[in-house]
Amino acid sequence: MRNSILVVILLLWVTGVFAQKTDLTLEEAVMGQWRQFYPSQPANLQWIPNQENFTFLNEDRTHLLVQKVGDKNAKKSLSLEQLRSDLGLEFKYFPSIKWKTETSFSFSYAGVYYVVNYENKKVKIQQKTELPKGNNLDRHDQTARIAYTDQHNLYIQDEEGRRLEVFATNDKNIVSGQAIARHEFGISKGTFWSPNGQYLAFYQKNEADVTDYPLLDINTTPASLNTIKYPMAGQKSEYAQIGVYNVKSQKVLMLKIDGPKDQYLTNLAWGPENKMLYVAIVNRQQNWMQLCQYDARSGELIKVLFEEKHDKYVEPENPVWFLPNNSNEFLWRSERDGFKHLYRYNIDGKLLGQVTNGNWVVLDVLGLDKSEKNVLVKGTDESGLNTTLYSAPLVGGKSVTKMVKKEGQHTFMVASNGNYILDGFSNLETPYELHLLAKNGTAKQLLYKAKDPYTEKTIATTTFQTIKGEGGVNLNTRLIKPADFDPKKKYPVIVYVYGGPQAQMITNSWLGGASLWMHYAANQGYLVFTLDNRGSANRGFEFENCIHRNLGELEMKDQMTGVEYLKTLPYADTDRMAVHGWSYGGFMTTSMMLKYPDVFKAGVAGGPVTNWAYYEIMYGERYMDMPHENEEGYKKTTLANFTNQLKGDLLLIHGTVDDVVVMQHSFSLVKSFVDNGILVDFFPYPMHLHNVRGKDRVHLMHKVLDYIDEKIKK
Amino acid sequence: MRNSILVVILLLWVTGVFAQKTDLTLEEAVMGQWRQFYPSQPANLQWIPNQENFTFLNEDRTHLLVQKVGDKNAKKSLSLEQLRSDLGLEFKYFPSIKWKTETSFSFSYAGVYYVVNYENKKVKIQQKTELPKGNNLDRHDQTARIAYTDQHNLYIQDEEGRRLEVFATNDKNIVSGQAIARHEFGISKGTFWSPNGQYLAFYQKNEADVTDYPLLDINTTPASLNTIKYPMAGQKSEYAQIGVYNVKSQKVLMLKIDGPKDQYLTNLAWGPENKMLYVAIVNRQQNWMQLCQYDARSGELIKVLFEEKHDKYVEPENPVWFLPNNSNEFLWRSERDGFKHLYRYNIDGKLLGQVTNGNWVVLDVLGLDKSEKNVLVKGTDESGLNTTLYSAPLVGGKSVTKMVKKEGQHTFMVASNGNYILDGFSNLETPYELHLLAKNGTAKQLLYKAKDPYTEKTIATTTFQTIKGEGGVNLNTRLIKPADFDPKKKYPVIVYVYGGPQAQMITNSWLGGASLWMHYAANQGYLVFTLDNRGSANRGFEFENCIHRNLGELEMKDQMTGVEYLKTLPYADTDRMAVHGWSYGGFMTTSMMLKYPDVFKAGVAGGPVTNWAYYEIMYGERYMDMPHENEEGYKKTTLANFTNQLKGDLLLIHGTVDDVVVMQHSFSLVKSFVDNGILVDFFPYPMHLHNVRGKDRVHLMHKVLDYIDEKIKK
Repeated sequence: MRNSILVVILLLWVTGVFAQKTDLTLEEAVMGQWRQFYPSQPANLQWIPNQENFTFLNEDRTHLLVQKVGDKNAKKSLSLEQLRSDLGLEFKYFPSIKWKTETSFSFSYAGVYYVVNYENKKVKIQQKTELPKGNNLDRHDQTARIAYTDQHNLYIQDEEGRRLEVFATNDKNIVSGQAIARHEFGISKGTFWSPNGQYLAFYQKNEADVTDYPLLDINTTPASLNTIKYPMAGQKSEYAQIGVYNVKSQKVLMLKIDGPKDQYLTNLAWGPENKMLYVAIVNRQQNWMQLCQYDARSGELIKVLFEEKHDKYVEPENPVWFLPNNSNEFLWRSERDGFKHLYRYNIDGKLLGQVTNGNWVVLDVLGLDKSEKNVLVKGTDESGLNTTLYSAPLVGGKSVTKMVKKEGQHTFMVASNGNYILDGFSNLETPYELHLLAKNGTAKQLLYKAKDPYTEKTIATTTFQTIKGEGGVNLNTRLIKPADFDPKKKYPVIVYVYGGPQAQMITNSWLGGASLWMHYAANQGYLVFTLDNRGSANRGFEFENCIHRNLGELEMKDQMTGVEYLKTLPYADTDRMAVHGWSYGGFMTTSMMLKYPDVFKAGVAGGPVTNWAYYEIMYGERYMDMPHENEEGYKKTTLANFTNQLKGDLLLIHGTVDDVVVMQHSFSLVKSFVDNGILVDFFPYPMHLHNVRGKDRVHLMHKVLDYIDEKIKK
Repeated sequence: MRNSILVVILLLWVTGVFAQKTDLTLEEAVMGQWRQFYPSQPANLQWIPNQENFTFLNEDRTHLLVQKVGDKNAKKSLSLEQLRSDLGLEFKYFPSIKWKTETSFSFSYAGVYYVVNYENKKVKIQQKTELPKGNNLDRHDQTARIAYTDQHNLYIQDEEGRRLEVFATNDKNIVSGQAIARHEFGISKGTFWSPNGQYLAFYQKNEADVTDYPLLDINTTPASLNTIKYPMAGQKSEYAQIGVYNVKSQKVLMLKIDGPKDQYLTNLAWGPENKMLYVAIVNRQQNWMQLCQYDARSGELIKVLFEEKHDKYVEPENPVWFLPNNSNEFLWRSERDGFKHLYRYNIDGKLLGQVTNGNWVVLDVLGLDKSEKNVLVKGTDESGLNTTLYSAPLVGGKSVTKMVKKEGQHTFMVASNGNYILDGFSNLETPYELHLLAKNGTAKQLLYKAKDPYTEKTIATTTFQTIKGEGGVNLNTRLIKPADFDPKKKYPVIVYVYGGPQAQMITNSWLGGASLWMHYAANQGYLVFTLDNRGSANRGFEFENCIHRNLGELEMKDQMTGVEYLKTLPYADTDRMAVHGWSYGGFMTTSMMLKYPDVFKAGVAGGPVTNWAYYEIMYGERYMDMPHENEEGYKKTTLANFTNQLKGDLLLIHGTVDDVVVMQHSFSLVKSFVDNGILVDFFPYPMHLHNVRGKDRVHLMHKVLDYIDEKIKK
């Protein structure tokens, strides 16, 4: 009797104290990372133009709040209720609005685009437009003209609602007004209004020579085809042009651009005078860039302002940024000194000076400060793990001031007068904080602090460690250990890898850049390790471009440096290691399984590139050149040439309608394994694209971890 | 010292005595079954027309041997050496020849078709023809005219080598001179010479309304498309016609065939008078057949000779067989009494009598006997396991004589005068024997006896057992046990299943119909069990057609009867069972894993049908009707509706360019598993069709057995 009371008490104690936190399930980990487990933030945060007020939504998204700099709290401004009744719309939540002027904002709802007047606490519709879906809508705010695409053609809806045909043809190979070059070179759109809205410049690509790639739609009976244009390395490419539409004359003029038709037309931008267009023309080899100035009215080349060459590659990703206070000068970003920095030029192409400098990378130009003598720049720090705010004198050649010391990741928003800055901040210890900074970067006010999202769930622990790679290079690593980590035990290891350029897996942010499934896996008894090898982003040009023509080789060397580091950890069971990665990480995973066959017992490669000749021209040729220019490099990176070296268990995973890394990569590799009589595993995600998204991602991670469990623990 | 001598002696003894036989490797099992482990037989065995001589090749294939009935041994006739020099050709082996007359034979070599005169021990080329590849060559021997196809069109090369255009069009949807109806209804070709060679009848199909199915060729860069026409159940079908080409007038006439355009034109044949064509017209529902007589010169229907209806289906698979001694009478095969038997009709359509009868199935009409009063028929016996020779009086209504008692599988060849019969024979104990039979079926002479192919390799042991199924039906089973079988042990079980109509897995033949991989698997410690369920071939019409509209249901019940039987075997570990099958067997495997989830721990389904709406019209609608006619049946057999019932481990395997059971079957099922969050495995064989052939079959069986090992033994 006394014993059972004791048991009850013990049970109460156990459930009440130890079991307050429960383990994350895999489903929670995968589905919850960007939902219930994402640190809360003020939604829809932004400055109102030309004011020292910023707005955001309350937590319930029932009200728009306005806060004036200096006020302690925000005030309720517009309610969802009022917005509904004033506009006669049935929103469930307050929509995502975008302030256009001090008194107007825009939003989309049910496929309709609205511009709304907001004065005297009343709202009324100023413009309302229903346009075809997926239409690349681009509105010029002052004129209220909207450029949009319909299938492959380009139109404008003018201020009176009339449709103007900018460029339309029955030839579906001619695509106008959409991003070109498969979104490389920072290209994210295809239409560019002149500042005054009288001209619309646009990209056009001719895909007639680009080969079709067939994707099988199994949702029809019988299965049917969705054929895409897919330009593979070394093959014929798309041909870009730039058109300029004059709204007044309703005529189109094509810029008279010389050069091979498969060159790249990148970073299109207008000069502030509505007359000149600036285009960074990159040759197909991507080792030569010319910044060209064209007359938008005649289409003539006025001059080549300057050029850049590099024996590996040049990669302009940001258009000219004209100084707001001097229409003859602009800032240009270049990696010419080894790090991406700002250079000031005039419109004659004269270099007036290097504006920023140092072993860090410019990420964003935020604007000029209040004095208009300094440019505010978001950049990395030297470790690459943190971002910060820099102020750099426009005159150049001077030292740059690091304005924010707090280490972590920042999102800065500068008020339009340059007087104040909103600073959204997180680091490994801080889920999210919003600070108001003074113009000199000092924190004036903590506006918002998110709660720890894991008060009821156990997550693993994360540590960073910078280790030395080949030649003394610093390599950032992240290690995730079980919540109940016991240094006397030995844990098997999952190495998660991406490894390719333009990306960084480890940042000093909440969770450190990790996915929550890694925490789930750690709590199942694994160490989850990641290393940002050479080739990855935000560590300078040489750190990235050393991989040129031989993708995977140095990246793998660095990963092996990580493995050596793991071997120094007494609690890491390096006889039982698995590697997992997706896309470039799938290439890395497969490469390591084949080329370092004794290191990993198991690998899971998702959407892997297995042969760079099957990958796209724009990204692929930058790093690998064309197959005939780099036969040795292609041979060494074509994984089918190494399938006979496999020792561990390898699972390949591919979305059946992947239009980025096409299924041919996995099927050709599987074929090579079969040809060599070697067992390998494969799993398709039917009707998924390059990434398995939505709830099927739970299945995916279940598959991945189940496979690793089975193969690593056997 | 003495010990080591003893060891040496022991080793010698072990290797010398016990190890005389070595275990079959998986590679030997898969690649060797039809090569080094196939019982040797006289190659190219055949009667010379109008003689009592038969010919075959010696074992080295260096000589043609001729043996006269009554002689003890064959005599060397023509040497490879002589053939080479007389014809000026560089054969490696003696080619496969086919006797055309007493003195001429034909063969193909290096894409060229030869007819050769063989008199006075000398050979000379009589006709030599190089025609496009894959050309459905059909030669009329007397006239030496050759019909052939080139792509979708049909031509004749006449006796003077000229090309006559029979039917040619640029429209690739019109396919002439090839088999139609996807080879169902016994259709194996598309051209039919009139007996005198003056007319060529041919099938033509119009595939314009048949949907395309895309197959991905990954051997090109980028992957490209091979689009096939694939008529799926319930969708629009191909439309058949029959043309008749008059060689003299060089004109084509199309038979004037009434009825819906998607009806089936089957079993086309000429009457002996060169005037009439006989066609069995089957409606799209396949429950009504009319045997029609058409005038080949006018194209008019002369009469409907008779019709057959059945509320399940009718399936004529053999054309009219005119009596050699009466051009007004023919034999027709029908399942109308429940077993496939012969019926004698006259050309007015009058039924003159049922010729064969009994609970067995006619397999082949061999010819008339010497008296010309009896027809010689190859048929099954009542068990379905054996075949035998029957003699049936043409007058009909009489008892049929079973002429060969020896139980096993026979291949009969009747000499053209009906006086002698060659009987190639095997059964579970007999690899191969060739006997000469007298006209009454008694064995006169053992001509050849193959050696046991397994003198150096250990194979497993095979037993047959007939068990009682639902309603007392006899079900044949086969059990393969390890060579070192120990009845006191418990062995896990692999059930190998096909289960669909038109096929039979178990016959009283050498190996009993089993594949050698089953012997390999048995020797790895498995029992390998197979049961021919209801629905399978050679057991009568009701045994087959009871599965109508609900494929899988009764088949699975019978398989479960097999499982119950296995449970009675003390040495069968029925807690550790796996099931494996391909095609219909893949459908069965998957169905059983989903619908009897507690029976098998693991399943491997190759090229599985998972949804009959994705299968072809001709075969599919026969058994399932159209989807809108049998919604319930389609629902119950669409495996995606049951994926949430899976408990064991299931591996699906599919050839990526399977044009019989298209990949959509597997992908749609995988999608359903993913949708339901259930783990499943899949493996593709890139660029393989419906079956994985060639050396990759070793990889396949390695994959299958490795999976079963891993899942069943864990």
